[in-house]
Amino acid sequence: MRNKLRLIVEDNTSHLGRIFDYFIQTLILLSLIAFSIETLPNNSLETKNILSLIEITCVSIFSVEYILRIFVAKKPLQYIFSFYGIIDLLAILPFYLRAAIDLRALRAFRIFRIFRALKLIRYNRALRRFHIAAKIVKEEIVLFFIVTGILIFLTASGIYFFENEAQPDVFSSIFSSFWWAIVTLTTVGYGDIVPITLGGKIFTFFVLIIGIGVVTVPAGLVATALTKARVLEEEEINKKAPHKVQGR
Amino acid sequence: MRNKLRLIVEDNTSHLGRIFDYFIQTLILLSLIAFSIETLPNNSLETKNILSLIEITCVSIFSVEYILRIFVAKKPLQYIFSFYGIIDLLAILPFYLRAAIDLRALRAFRIFRIFRALKLIRYNRALRRFHIAAKIVKEEIVLFFIVTGILIFLTASGIYFFENEAQPDVFSSIFSSFWWAIVTLTTVGYGDIVPITLGGKIFTFFVLIIGIGVVTVPAGLVATALTKARVLEEEEINKKAPHKVQGR
Amino acid sequence: MRNKLRLIVEDNTSHLGRIFDYFIQTLILLSLIAFSIETLPNNSLETKNILSLIEITCVSIFSVEYILRIFVAKKPLQYIFSFYGIIDLLAILPFYLRAAIDLRALRAFRIFRIFRALKLIRYNRALRRFHIAAKIVKEEIVLFFIVTGILIFLTASGIYFFENEAQPDVFSSIFSSFWWAIVTLTTVGYGDIVPITLGGKIFTFFVLIIGIGVVTVPAGLVATALTKARVLEEEEINKKAPHKVQGR
Amino acid sequence: MRNKLRLIVEDNTSHLGRIFDYFIQTLILLSLIAFSIETLPNNSLETKNILSLIEITCVSIFSVEYILRIFVAKKPLQYIFSFYGIIDLLAILPFYLRAAIDLRALRAFRIFRIFRALKLIRYNRALRRFHIAAKIVKEEIVLFFIVTGILIFLTASGIYFFENEAQPDVFSSIFSSFWWAIVTLTTVGYGDIVPITLGGKIFTFFVLIIGIGVVTVPAGLVATALTKARVLEEEEINKKAPHKVQGR
Repeated sequence: MRNKLRLIVEDNTSHLGRIFDYFIQTLILLSLIAFSIETLPNNSLETKNILSLIEITCVSIFSVEYILRIFVAKKPLQYIFSFYGIIDLLAILPFYLRAAIDLRALRAFRIFRIFRALKLIRYNRALRRFHIAAKIVKEEIVLFFIVTGILIFLTASGIYFFENEAQPDVFSSIFSSFWWAIVTLTTVGYGDIVPITLGGKIFTFFVLIIGIGVVTVPAGLVATALTKARVLEEEEINKKAPHKVQGR
Repeated sequence: MRNKLRLIVEDNTSHLGRIFDYFIQTLILLSLIAFSIETLPNNSLETKNILSLIEITCVSIFSVEYILRIFVAKKPLQYIFSFYGIIDLLAILPFYLRAAIDLRALRAFRIFRIFRALKLIRYNRALRRFHIAAKIVKEEIVLFFIVTGILIFLTASGIYFFENEAQPDVFSSIFSSFWWAIVTLTTVGYGDIVPITLGGKIFTFFVLIIGIGVVTVPAGLVATALTKARVLEEEEINKKAPHKVQGR
Repeated sequence: MRNKLRLIVEDNTSHLGRIFDYFIQTLILLSLIAFSIETLPNNSLETKNILSLIEITCVSIFSVEYILRIFVAKKPLQYIFSFYGIIDLLAILPFYLRAAIDLRALRAFRIFRIFRALKLIRYNRALRRFHIAAKIVKEEIVLFFIVTGILIFLTASGIYFFENEAQPDVFSSIFSSFWWAIVTLTTVGYGDIVPITLGGKIFTFFVLIIGIGVVTVPAGLVATALTKARVLEEEEINKKAPHKVQGR
Repeated sequence: MRNKLRLIVEDNTSHLGRIFDYFIQTLILLSLIAFSIETLPNNSLETKNILSLIEITCVSIFSVEYILRIFVAKKPLQYIFSFYGIIDLLAILPFYLRAAIDLRALRAFRIFRIFRALKLIRYNRALRRFHIAAKIVKEEIVLFFIVTGILIFLTASGIYFFENEAQPDVFSSIFSSFWWAIVTLTTVGYGDIVPITLGGKIFTFFVLIIGIGVVTVPAGLVATALTKARVLEEEEINKKAPHKVQGR
């Protein structure tokens, strides 16, 4: 019976397993929508009651599911301390601890359970390509993060010395300038803080010319690495089944 | 006679077919310009009359064209329920139903008829490359959309808990925070909603560092996939005419 | 003597030719700086006199240069109607016509003359790679421009119907909405016009998810095409000198 | 003894060398945090005293380190005038000159000392790939910088002539327009300066369509060049150890 249950709970290739998966995924989405509606101001008492009911139902089913998963797991402890095990626990814990401590915000993490939907083979392969790509560009990405960090620090320091006197309330310290630096270098540009001195503007001019490139290169790197990962994957497949190359 | 008409209406390689095509394309552009001018406030009565006249003329000709296309089609029903068939109907329907229901906004969809202009061979090949590229990166794009969705939800939830107390009018619920999340993660940054608490700013800092990469990678993926699609196309051409490789 | 002059004026590999080139380039930059300073409000009379003097000197020398270039050209008419010939004329014409018509703004086009500085061999090769890359992705770029055009039109129409009632002054017609559409789709996001209705915000949400990709893909395409152009160039060089491949 | 010291100071592969490196890196970070806190307004006297103590301690140790590095260097003069030599001096000089001249802002440059942390072999290889990539795309990048420069100048001139009359305070000269041009072309879009005339808006429309591509292409170029550099590196490794290709 434990084996049968395992097929349903852990395997999503069988018919019953797929139904179980869709059911849980729907519940997760439902509980996230309820969670979002709960944040609306001026909810009527009736709405609050319905939301509370949905929450109790979801948590009950998630709890049963959690116990089931521990029960069917070949190594229960390994499951409990795995990424999914912790996420599954975080999905229900806030409810049981609500009398003692307000952890409702943690319910947002339920969204990570959605990832289980990607356990299909084709996404598994795509995820593996991501892993290969990550390995390929790891060093470059780390370098870019260090350079970006240094760039943000220098930009924040620079703008502080140019703008602090003219706008002491806005650029009050290097920490406030960090906010401006990140908003500018990522080209978000809210416009809530803007340099007004000539020196600050010229400084921003050069920061933008140099900085934009630095900040946007990693995305391009990841994209080309993913393409490379696909090529490597194809080569591997061809190596395993070389006769297919001819017949392609 | 039906065959002759088909050559004119459906084929844009013949001389008459090309004239027919240019004529219809010009009318589409004209009707779209009239549609845009109609939205201007304070149009004089004279202008309104001219616009009305243009609209009646365009709809009349489009109606004749629609009937012609059904008439010449080898499988009329297939045409009626095809993408272009529906677009062609949507281009004239609002006019005939204007007494019963106001569907004028649908007239904007006439712009899709412009796509017919791309039926030339060289764009057909470019479009085919897009299809190949789409197939190559489909799984990665789906993955990125799911990750982007999760990221937007977590960003919106996060900023809600940081900013709701300080700005209850602006970040009034997670739904309002969604607006901020999408405007920030796409680096548009209107600046109509901006975090003001220290926690919210630090949270935004990390969201930007991580999020920008996630959101901009798909564009790079499409670009490299298109390049790959071109390589595949060239290989295919070479396979069909291998002697050309030598002489290139 | 005409041959000697040609070596100086048209050729920048000889010693005198290089001096002539640097001299003209410096004058162009000087005249552009003078042109920029002229736009400053509250220039003193003295400054105005100096700027006027610089302008007269530059135009005189440019005029002599223009006549020289016609004189030494093997086919004078071809030079006059070439891109550089027209730019060279536009650089001096506004000055001579200043009594009749105010074309001072055209002086900004003098900056195109800077391109001559790129006539060096290594930049010639880089420019040729740009040409090859442009040829490779021409069709894709044209397709993307058409799709972008359609997207902007649909975005502008859509936001007009969502926001016109709520903000009749800002989204007064589709033409005003065009401004919002282009500022949003390019992720500039000034924030001078922002949707405020729920419908408009949800519409913007989907426009951003889809639109950003469309608008940023061409840059990636150009980048990969340039890399491809370099590979083609290397292949060509190797074909011409195959023994070098071994020795590399 | 000088050799032993050199192993500790210059070499980070030995045990003692690694401890020395971590110690100095920690001190650099500590001094940068102290430097940032110092800019906060309303620091208490106690905080100021602690910060002052940290600064004196850091400068003392950095001074000893600087002298040590000169002492152990095989060519002391070469070290003093190298990039790291100058950075090391700039890290301590402001403190010794504080009575004569206020160079405290220079302390921000201490962050460059962090780069030493990248002396590990794997980052050395990543840095070498950056060098190769930089060499590959140098000409294209230079061309793009020139084109960007010309584009910014033409954009600034253009918007000046469209907007100067309508907003004489904001677009007061071409120099002020430069600020708008760079903020717009990099898609930062603060929104502090926005065109309001119809001409200015149409002009911006075309500038954005053309400009965005120009400004974002270099990042894509660098990304593809880095991928190319990795391929070249792999080829080189394979050439040195061709038997490994078979066994891979």
